[in-house]
Amino acid sequence: MSNGRLLGLGVGPGDPDLITLKAFKLLQKADVVAYPTGRTSGGNAHDAIAPHINGRQELVPLRYPATAGPVADSREYPALLRAFYDETAETLAARLEQGKDVAIICLGDPFFYGSYMYWHDRLSERFETIVVPGVSSVMAAPAALGLPLVHKNDAVTVLPGTLPEPVLEEKLRNTDVAVIMKLGRTLPKVVRVLEKLDLLDRSHYVERATMPGQRILRPDEVDPKKTDYFSIIIVPCNLKG
Amino acid sequence: MSNGRLLGLGVGPGDPDLITLKAFKLLQKADVVAYPTGRTSGGNAHDAIAPHINGRQELVPLRYPATAGPVADSREYPALLRAFYDETAETLAARLEQGKDVAIICLGDPFFYGSYMYWHDRLSERFETIVVPGVSSVMAAPAALGLPLVHKNDAVTVLPGTLPEPVLEEKLRNTDVAVIMKLGRTLPKVVRVLEKLDLLDRSHYVERATMPGQRILRPDEVDPKKTDYFSIIIVPCNLKG
Repeated sequence: MSNGRLLGLGVGPGDPDLITLKAFKLLQKADVVAYPTGRTSGGNAHDAIAPHINGRQELVPLRYPATAGPVADSREYPALLRAFYDETAETLAARLEQGKDVAIICLGDPFFYGSYMYWHDRLSERFETIVVPGVSSVMAAPAALGLPLVHKNDAVTVLPGTLPEPVLEEKLRNTDVAVIMKLGRTLPKVVRVLEKLDLLDRSHYVERATMPGQRILRPDEVDPKKTDYFSIIIVPCNLKG
Repeated sequence: MSNGRLLGLGVGPGDPDLITLKAFKLLQKADVVAYPTGRTSGGNAHDAIAPHINGRQELVPLRYPATAGPVADSREYPALLRAFYDETAETLAARLEQGKDVAIICLGDPFFYGSYMYWHDRLSERFETIVVPGVSSVMAAPAALGLPLVHKNDAVTVLPGTLPEPVLEEKLRNTDVAVIMKLGRTLPKVVRVLEKLDLLDRSHYVERATMPGQRILRPDEVDPKKTDYFSIIIVPCNLKG
């Protein structure tokens, strides 16, 4: 019996209708559907595909050891995370060796900050692999705002809010258009830099774009204690400029 | 009678299966389907949706005055282009005023270097508008390569090959991951900068990702005279790093 295929499926930013036809078709035919989650079951990746699964598939939640709190902050966390990827990759490899097609669900795009890449790294040389690109929140947030992001000869930089303040400042100074991901505790720092560079009036905070509970605010109106992992700041181009 | 809706539909990088369910559903129900093209009919945007249109819709090709050659290089071209957007926007406005839903097709994403934004700018304040984000070639090219683009705390810069050589060099020096669009005549300059920064071995040229005729090459193997408008260079992250 031949091995099954690994399917790295970008399913878009959260709205189940923002999956591509290609990912939808592969998802419906997969024997096993694995999805990352911080909880016992469910979660955002699961919710994005819940209307599309056929009820006869094996669902495999890939439970992160922790997504926030003291464990996620600890020095042991990188090793814990590697062990998590190693173990879950073997769980999936066992299904692939039984000839089953295994889909791994990835919110957004699999290769754009997507955790799918860590399973890809462990499995794609052993098994035939198909990666389906997805709509990233970098595209979904401007659509939710109704604001063009980048035009003509603009350069756009996507950067994590986790960067040190001077680095963030330098990168924002040297780009036409910016998208800032990985907010949360980093938000006051990001707002400080945007204010310093006089970019605050051009900036938009979008939380859970296309998902239930979507919110759009000015970055300095956001309570840093009440941010969501799925939040992003957009500093778009000036179409008239 | 009430006005129709303007639908800005990102249809993905070219493979008709990389349209989202949301864009697919709105496309099938639209009364008018307008698509940018450089030719009398057809073209890449048309080919991306050809399997999805229902045969009862009015198709409106939006014919650019020129896409290459002496006219596109002339000093008059920006004014010609503005007149083109003004005129075609009025063509579409007439349909919208008749209560028809008008879809404008955009390869990739409408607000990520997409020309849809110029019609959006002219029509979205007058008519109810829905913008559907799409899969960009920034996501499609790494999927075609099977290479993760950006991970962890990387910053990624997307820049046009049209930038002056010193600017291109400075921006490539100051980013972890890069995506270079708008290649063609600019390719020898881009290759020179990649070589200078010792990035050539990490770089991949992807032409017409997910479209018929897709090609993957080293950037320095490409004949600059035989490039396609739909080409992109990817300088991805090092997953092991």
